Amino acid sequence: MSISIPRGTQDILPGEVEKWQLIEAKARELCEKYQYQEIRTPIFEQTDLFARGVGDTTDIVQKEMYTFEDRGGRSLTLRPEGTAAVVRSFVEKKMFGYPNQPVKLYYMGPMFRYERPQAGRFRQFVQFGVEALGSNDPAIDAEVISLAMNLYKEMGLKKLKLVINSLGDKESRTAHRNALVNHFQPRIGEFCQDCQNRLEKNPLRILDCKQDHNHELMKTAPSIIDYLNDDSKAYFEKLQQYLTQLEIEFVVDPNLVRGLDYYNHTAFEIMSDAEGFGAITTLCGGGRYNGLAEEMGGPETPGIGFAMSIERFIAALKAEGIELEINQGIDCYLAALGEEAKDYTVGLLQKLRLAGVSCERDYLNRKVKAQFKAADRLNAKYVAVLGDEELANNKINLKNMATGEQVEIDLTQFVEYFQELKR
Amino acid sequence: MSISIPRGTQDILPGEVEKWQLIEAKARELCEKYQYQEIRTPIFEQTDLFARGVGDTTDIVQKEMYTFEDRGGRSLTLRPEGTAAVVRSFVEKKMFGYPNQPVKLYYMGPMFRYERPQAGRFRQFVQFGVEALGSNDPAIDAEVISLAMNLYKEMGLKKLKLVINSLGDKESRTAHRNALVNHFQPRIGEFCQDCQNRLEKNPLRILDCKQDHNHELMKTAPSIIDYLNDDSKAYFEKLQQYLTQLEIEFVVDPNLVRGLDYYNHTAFEIMSDAEGFGAITTLCGGGRYNGLAEEMGGPETPGIGFAMSIERFIAALKAEGIELEINQGIDCYLAALGEEAKDYTVGLLQKLRLAGVSCERDYLNRKVKAQFKAADRLNAKYVAVLGDEELANNKINLKNMATGEQVEIDLTQFVEYFQELKR
Repeated sequence: MSISIPRGTQDILPGEVEKWQLIEAKARELCEKYQYQEIRTPIFEQTDLFARGVGDTTDIVQKEMYTFEDRGGRSLTLRPEGTAAVVRSFVEKKMFGYPNQPVKLYYMGPMFRYERPQAGRFRQFVQFGVEALGSNDPAIDAEVISLAMNLYKEMGLKKLKLVINSLGDKESRTAHRNALVNHFQPRIGEFCQDCQNRLEKNPLRILDCKQDHNHELMKTAPSIIDYLNDDSKAYFEKLQQYLTQLEIEFVVDPNLVRGLDYYNHTAFEIMSDAEGFGAITTLCGGGRYNGLAEEMGGPETPGIGFAMSIERFIAALKAEGIELEINQGIDCYLAALGEEAKDYTVGLLQKLRLAGVSCERDYLNRKVKAQFKAADRLNAKYVAVLGDEELANNKINLKNMATGEQVEIDLTQFVEYFQELKR
Repeated sequence: MSISIPRGTQDILPGEVEKWQLIEAKARELCEKYQYQEIRTPIFEQTDLFARGVGDTTDIVQKEMYTFEDRGGRSLTLRPEGTAAVVRSFVEKKMFGYPNQPVKLYYMGPMFRYERPQAGRFRQFVQFGVEALGSNDPAIDAEVISLAMNLYKEMGLKKLKLVINSLGDKESRTAHRNALVNHFQPRIGEFCQDCQNRLEKNPLRILDCKQDHNHELMKTAPSIIDYLNDDSKAYFEKLQQYLTQLEIEFVVDPNLVRGLDYYNHTAFEIMSDAEGFGAITTLCGGGRYNGLAEEMGGPETPGIGFAMSIERFIAALKAEGIELEINQGIDCYLAALGEEAKDYTVGLLQKLRLAGVSCERDYLNRKVKAQFKAADRLNAKYVAVLGDEELANNKINLKNMATGEQVEIDLTQFVEYFQELKR
């Protein structure tokens, strides 16, 4: 009996995995230009980290975490997102003392949420994200947004929609929070239990409720935009000025509330506008989290970042009909006839490969005709044929598969000949 | 209060992470030349997979797995190694029916074992591995070994020791197994409980015991080499012939027994011979596992692969005193003076980056002198200085930090000027 893959997860196989590789390589390349450096944190963290760093009123922490005890009795959790661990590391490794400030980091890797599996939603998914810690300059908010937008654009996406909002500073948030409590309090009994709990803890998250989003009080709820103080307004206006300067189109949506507890000032989402993309259109979410490092036991440190799912990135490419250019085919297939010739190709193959030629030989003891078929399936540009007789004469036949042209080459010159061909 | 990283795990930070990146990039490049394609399986699998695929008499399965139940009551385990999942996917996705045979795959990513943390040993570690499924040709055994050896060599390692052995085919293994039982049976009471359990289940693993390895019966135990039948001998000799042809030095060690249950024929380890490397010298282990796909519910399929730890790879580089070439420094730092000039650099920075120039600006509202210091710390090759006055005159000053030379450039020509410089 065979054992199947765990529910809600997927194998990424050759033919598909190249898309992941291309997107990741482009992300790394852009991060180098933008001067973001990679950080790798563990796949699991102490469970408390996420309760504190993601927020214990969030669905993620309440319902979706893979939490378990290790053999030493410690409660560990597979990371559901990347920011909490990066900030944990920032505090633990005292990066606030690094001479280069702000500290600009990126991460790439699997995240885990126990959600109901559905099209395009997996329990293990890959996120690419960046975090810039240590600067309160709206120019860095613009940089972070532009990095995400440019990654999408450089991969060919055109139908993008950037939505921004400001959640304001602490003063503005407190004023808004009080207004929200006053707004919902009288009729909170009409809302779900989660929302009733949120009223005191984090009323902003009521606006994010999937269950009650059609309640009439939602539409009339006080908007953060009306509660921004002067500093927060100035910050938000400067960000918009920079985005305009960077020729990045955006819309302001006062209802944009990110699902995590620790955001303030800038919040943004990038969505796909492509037809037929399906229900989930958010590709990327991010924002500013000036309180988080302090919450984690570090000094007060401003921070901003985003996270994007590679799965949705690929879905958006598909929705826009964009085919990525994937390197197909090998340079040369070494077909051999006879025991000695076959043995000889073992060494020749390695020499070609180490000289930068992508090539293959037969490992199934197939006849020459079947070897040519195998070469065809591998889209080989050339097939070299070596028989025991050629070997004795120190020759090899090379066939150009596009033109059908054949040449006989000195066996000892073959690697150099091929290197020349590739130039 | 701050939350620390889980015991036995590590953050890989900028300054160190570049080594991982370089090794991984080289591994990907070699895999492309050798025609191995990437597969990505989930971080966790159903627990049964490892009991069956790794072997339920192994230390890994008995003592070292991170096993937990998900919210649906399924028993899941963080993968302790890569082969079982690749073969699971091979069977589940019916890759035995692919037209291109053998199926040549590689993987790269974190693995998890609950071991006592010590220098160079982590509970989460990164493995790179390859698997070639569907060929019983000793030439592919040689290819797999040469891929591993060439990766080490191309990164600069010189003090390598390749040890090979044959565990024989089924007939040879049965004969050897019986000899082992006869050898140990009379005095099995002198061995640890694990070994007593192993006697019936898998006596070969007694030879691998960490506790009893000094017992006198160990030295006199029957060697597999003496029990190889003609087919197994011929296979092993052909492998050695190919390795010699590939100019890969090796030693045969009849005591080399891989810790996993499913190996047959070829087994190998690559070790570091570097002085001061410490106690753990095995860099890479691999071998042939012709019974595994069938064990997983698939058709009988020959297979061979290896796995190597990137952490130990890096330790070996360090032990040999090899410094990897890591790209240091940025092309240009944009220093600005005055509100308008600062704002202007937001757009200029993006234009330079998208033109392929790695560059940075200030995000901490620093004075020009402090901006020059920041440029120094980033090893900037050039610093461009823009003041409000220059901006009004459509000029920018560019200083070559190596020569001290300064030029004034038309601001509108600046990006092109820099692109020209980089050529």
